[in-house]
This record gives sequence, structure tokens and C-alpha cells, in this order.
Amino acid sequence: MSTATYSPGLEGIIAGDTAIGCVDQGQLLYRGYPIQELAEKTLFGEVAHLLLYGELPRTAQLNQFRQTLFSFRELPPQVVQALRLIPTDTPMMDVLRTCVSMAGHFDPVKGSSPDDLRRRAVWLLATVASIVATRYRFLQHKEPVPPKEGLSHAAQLLYQCHGVEPDAPSAKLIDLTLILYAEHEFNASTFANRICASTLSDMVSCVVCGIGTLKGPLHGGANEEAMAMLKQFKTADDASKWIRNAFAKHEKVMGFGHRVYKHGDHRAHILEAEMRKLAVQKGQQHWLEIYDAIKKPMVEEKKIFPNVDYPCGLVYYLLDLPIDIYTPLFVAARVTGWCAHYIEQVTNNRIYRPLSQYIGPPRRTVVPIDQR
Amino acid sequence: MSTATYSPGLEGIIAGDTAIGCVDQGQLLYRGYPIQELAEKTLFGEVAHLLLYGELPRTAQLNQFRQTLFSFRELPPQVVQALRLIPTDTPMMDVLRTCVSMAGHFDPVKGSSPDDLRRRAVWLLATVASIVATRYRFLQHKEPVPPKEGLSHAAQLLYQCHGVEPDAPSAKLIDLTLILYAEHEFNASTFANRICASTLSDMVSCVVCGIGTLKGPLHGGANEEAMAMLKQFKTADDASKWIRNAFAKHEKVMGFGHRVYKHGDHRAHILEAEMRKLAVQKGQQHWLEIYDAIKKPMVEEKKIFPNVDYPCGLVYYLLDLPIDIYTPLFVAARVTGWCAHYIEQVTNNRIYRPLSQYIGPPRRTVVPIDQR
Repeated sequence: MSTATYSPGLEGIIAGDTAIGCVDQGQLLYRGYPIQELAEKTLFGEVAHLLLYGELPRTAQLNQFRQTLFSFRELPPQVVQALRLIPTDTPMMDVLRTCVSMAGHFDPVKGSSPDDLRRRAVWLLATVASIVATRYRFLQHKEPVPPKEGLSHAAQLLYQCHGVEPDAPSAKLIDLTLILYAEHEFNASTFANRICASTLSDMVSCVVCGIGTLKGPLHGGANEEAMAMLKQFKTADDASKWIRNAFAKHEKVMGFGHRVYKHGDHRAHILEAEMRKLAVQKGQQHWLEIYDAIKKPMVEEKKIFPNVDYPCGLVYYLLDLPIDIYTPLFVAARVTGWCAHYIEQVTNNRIYRPLSQYIGPPRRTVVPIDQR
Repeated sequence: MSTATYSPGLEGIIAGDTAIGCVDQGQLLYRGYPIQELAEKTLFGEVAHLLLYGELPRTAQLNQFRQTLFSFRELPPQVVQALRLIPTDTPMMDVLRTCVSMAGHFDPVKGSSPDDLRRRAVWLLATVASIVATRYRFLQHKEPVPPKEGLSHAAQLLYQCHGVEPDAPSAKLIDLTLILYAEHEFNASTFANRICASTLSDMVSCVVCGIGTLKGPLHGGANEEAMAMLKQFKTADDASKWIRNAFAKHEKVMGFGHRVYKHGDHRAHILEAEMRKLAVQKGQQHWLEIYDAIKKPMVEEKKIFPNVDYPCGLVYYLLDLPIDIYTPLFVAARVTGWCAHYIEQVTNNRIYRPLSQYIGPPRRTVVPIDQR
């Protein structure tokens, strides 16, 4: 095709329209609201409602939304059985991929009206959190904890993990990470989810696509990778030596850089400020020195800025969460964005079918096997 | 970005390079070989080897390939247990999505060298077939059938479904459908699989993405949809009435049309010829009349040609396969293409991250919930 545009990685290609989110002047907006304001003035439940229904809820709407979410928190027994079949050393992202897929066979929401689709999204939001918490319990050789009424989504998730209610600042901080992770226009996992949706496949298949894609270390897996990197270091000196070596070897440093934000990820700024306060509160300032020992040369010498995953890894670490749960917590938030994109895609659909440039062998003739 | 190209659906966008397959002058080539010749002179095992290793195998190589494939056919007991947990009315594509994901937790291939990746692909090829056959058995209230040495991939699959070896012409015809379904450059499921791969996620996650995406009725699901449509009709007259009505209502007819082939899908021609012979052999010529009653007005009046899914649905039906297994059989073939694309993507990677055009509300200010 003579007019075809060549763009491996699709950089600079607008693959579709969206009313869900955008990056405007370096700031992320969800349905028009700056992320900074959402972070300051809302809880994740409100943001989930905003993404799925298009508007921030009033109190009565939020209560209704929370009630629906609560009603969906119990996992089907078959999903719990499937969880028990999975070896304990399986990464939790893989567990989530299997168990969300399994839960799909017991989807309690029927129909496909816009309202059914939004209800199914709320069911998935609850289901992802319950799978994460149940797996967390099993890894601790403990039984699942039934949900407790009246908790925010973040507090409920922590409660179902630990069996005790989290302190308010911890719950608020996890909630903040969920807000920051909820949506980011056509990132790789959302885009994979939209491609799946564009064949008119179902919402569960699309979320499973999202999970498999988010898992990659170049995507959501980066919050785990970033913390795994930091955890190697006892002192800022160790970190400095390591980053020099990484520079010399031209190695990629996880938690830095972003296709869309060339001058820094706004979400990283928001979260880093909270992370610094948390480290001080916890008397863990040495982590700040290590954190800066990597960040400073990356920014000053390479002009590559931290993305949201870099401070997020450390936030979760300082809150005593195991590293394997970090990307699943990303899923627990992003599932709202994926579902909103699913609904948007199927509502005004055009199947994704790009071209490829052939670089293989020229046309040749098949020689039958007995003459090869 | 002023230089961005707007292309919803990515029509006319070259999203990357591939050496695996291409459409050249309306003919599909796998690594340079025309599909027509592969259909005439090879079996699917040879094509799978070609796609994964780059070359058609010699006899000794094919024997080795088959031996490896055979060695991977037994499912881990946990996958069989998971299969038993899934309700019997669950579509088999959903079953496959869950069980391939579950099988991933027991991947017997370690490492990620090019050779490890190809072995993992062969393991997935065996695993998909075994899941399909085992599910088929369970739906018939029968126990799984252990694989039998010396059978082609298609014959083995049928043997494990039915417990008896298929007759040679049936096995050959299923084999032909697997050859035709094995690969098709950047179609939606392969593209979703490559996007997943581009985050450096794992091969199983990518294949699971592929399954979820192929399931859609605008993609692989079309072979089931096409047969479900044909099955409504007792006579060609019924079909003629139905298509007139579909035209009047501007309804999409499944199994017709293709983004890449505007003048007919070459694979449909190849398969249709075999389907016609089969219908005559089986004394089921009335299906040909029904088939043509839909095809003729689509081609002559709408200039929309059958794609491979249209004759394929009827081939499977005439071979007495239940409709629910048609798209899973597509997976049983396409998994080779997906894995070849996975290997190609991670070997020369660039993360897919397109842009989107924002059409939502303009920037606005968050009003706290108690003031909304």
C-alpha cells in the first residue's frame, strides 16, 4: 500500500478516540479532572465511579457504588479451589491471570447493556481485589478473611490481606497509589485490552489481556523491578556504584522513563512527596538516600525521569507489602481503566488490524519432505 | 503532537516488521512459501516447524519435532482438576483461556534462549490440543484418552477427542484447516499477542491474550458464528429469505469480508473446494445449496467475499464436530503463529504505545464530595 505509514511501536500514531483520560500539558487528566486534584480531594472509589460512569459521584451514588462493590467481594468457591491448585512460587500476576479468567465462568452479571457492562466492571474490580487478598492469605498459610462493611476499597483490600483494619494513613496512601494507577490512555495493557474488545470479545477476556500485558517489566512489572533493584543496596554508596556500572553497560533502569512524559511523570512527583514523609515517619530515611542515589544521576546525567513505578515500589515496601503483590495492586486499580476502555471500544467499534512490513525470505517453492 | 497520524483501527499503519508471513499479490505466504503449495504438499507438523524454526523440516527433523510434541501431550493434573471446576455450559474458548493460563504455572521448559522459546512453543502447541480434547471428553462424560504414538497432530487431536483413530481423509482435512489457520501476519489476536510481548511479558501471557482476542465474533469466533447462521436453515430458500432480510437491515454476515483481502480470501477458495467434495461424499449436498444461497448474493451484490471461516465452519460440521470446538481448533493451529510472533517481537523489541485523541470533557475542577 503506497500510502501506508511505517511506525513500529506505533509512536506518533493516534490509534483512536477516548473520552476517558488524556495527558494535557504534561498533566494526566481523568475525564477532565487533573490527577493532582483527584489525589487531593477524592478517594479511589470516587475515581472508579468517575472512570466507569463519567462523573464523580454524589454521596448517595458513592454509597450505592460501594454497596455493589461489597456485594461482589465473595469469590466463587471454584476460584478459591483454583487458587489452591497453583504452586506457591507462582508469581502473583500469573495467579491473577488464571483466577480472573476462572472467575469469568461465574460472572454474576448477565446482559450487555451499558449498565450491565458497568456492573460487570464493578464485579471485576471486587474480584481482582479478592483474588489478591485470598492469594496473600494462602501464602501466609491463613484462611481468607470475609469483607467488612464500611471500608474504602483500599482499606478493604488491606483488611482482607491482614485480617486487621489498616491505620488510616496507610489506607490513604494505598488509596492514592490506586488513584494514580487507575488510568493512562493508550498504554500497552489498555491498548491490548482495546484490541481484544475490538473483535467484540468479552470484558473478562479483555481484562485478562490487560493483566498479561501489564505484567511485563517494561510496563506495570516495573514497580516490582524497581524495588527489587533498590533492595539490593544497603547504603547510598552501594546504589551509586551500581548505577555507574549500569551506565557503563548501557543497562535499562526500571522505574525510569516514559513514552509520553519526556520531562517527568507528574504522578511520580505526587507520590514521591508522600513517600518521603512515610520514610521519615517510619524512621527509614536511609531508603531516601538510596532512592536519590539512583534518581539523581538518572535525571541529571541521562535526563531520564522517574515514572510512577519508582516511588510506588518504595511506598509499598515501606508499608511492609511483599514485592510480589506490587503489580497486582496496579491491576486492582487499572482494572477500572481497562473496563472503561472496553465499554468505550465496543460502543463505537472498529477492529484493530494494522499492516506489517515483510522482511522474510522471498517467495519460494515447497519441496516435498522426501526430497528435502 | 503536530506530526501524529490519525488512524483508528490502524488501517494503513505498518506496526512493525515480520519475517513470518505476508500477503503477496493476494496470496498468503508463510516464510516465503505460498499457502496453496503448503496445503498440497505438507502436513501441519511441517508448517508448525516452518513457522517456529524458519524452515521446513527434513524427515529426521520432523520426527524429532513430533517426538517433542508427543512428550508434552500429558496435561498436569492441576489443569485437569481446573477443567473439572468449570461449568459444562462455559464456551470452550473461555475454558481454553483459563486452562492455558493454569498450564503456564507448570511450564516444563525453563530458560529463555531462542531454543527454549521454541521448545516452549511446542509445549504450548501440545497443551492447547490436549486441553481441547480433554474438555471434549468431559463434555461427553468420558475420561481423557492418552495420546498414541505415530499420529499426525490433527489425527492425534481427533483421536484424543473420540478415542478412535480418525479415517485418513478426515484427519487430512482437519490438518488442512490447521495449515490455513496457522498464521496471518498482524491480525488482531497476533497483534494483541505482540503488544503483550512488547512489555517483555511471558509467552503464556501472550498466548492467553491471543485466545481472548481470537474469541471475538469479528475474528476467530466467526467460524462458529458462520455455522450457527447456516444451521438455522433447512433449505436454500430459507437461507435466501434470511440474507434478503439481513441486507434490508444492514446486518453484518459472519464469515464474509476481510481487512486485507478485498477480492477474496485465498484460503477460502482452497478450503471451499475440499468442503464441496466432503459434502458430496457425505451425501449432504443440501448444505452446498444453503452455503451458496448466502454466498452468491454476498459476492454478486455486496462484493463481499467469504473468508476462510465460512467454509471452515461447514467442514467441521460435516465432520461431526460440535460447533463450540471450531474456534478452539483455530487456536490449536494459530498458537504456532502467535509463538513465532512472540519470539520475533522479544528478539527485536520496541514497546507498543500509540497515542489517542481526547474527545472527553474539557479540563475541570474537582468539587469535594460534600459539595457536589
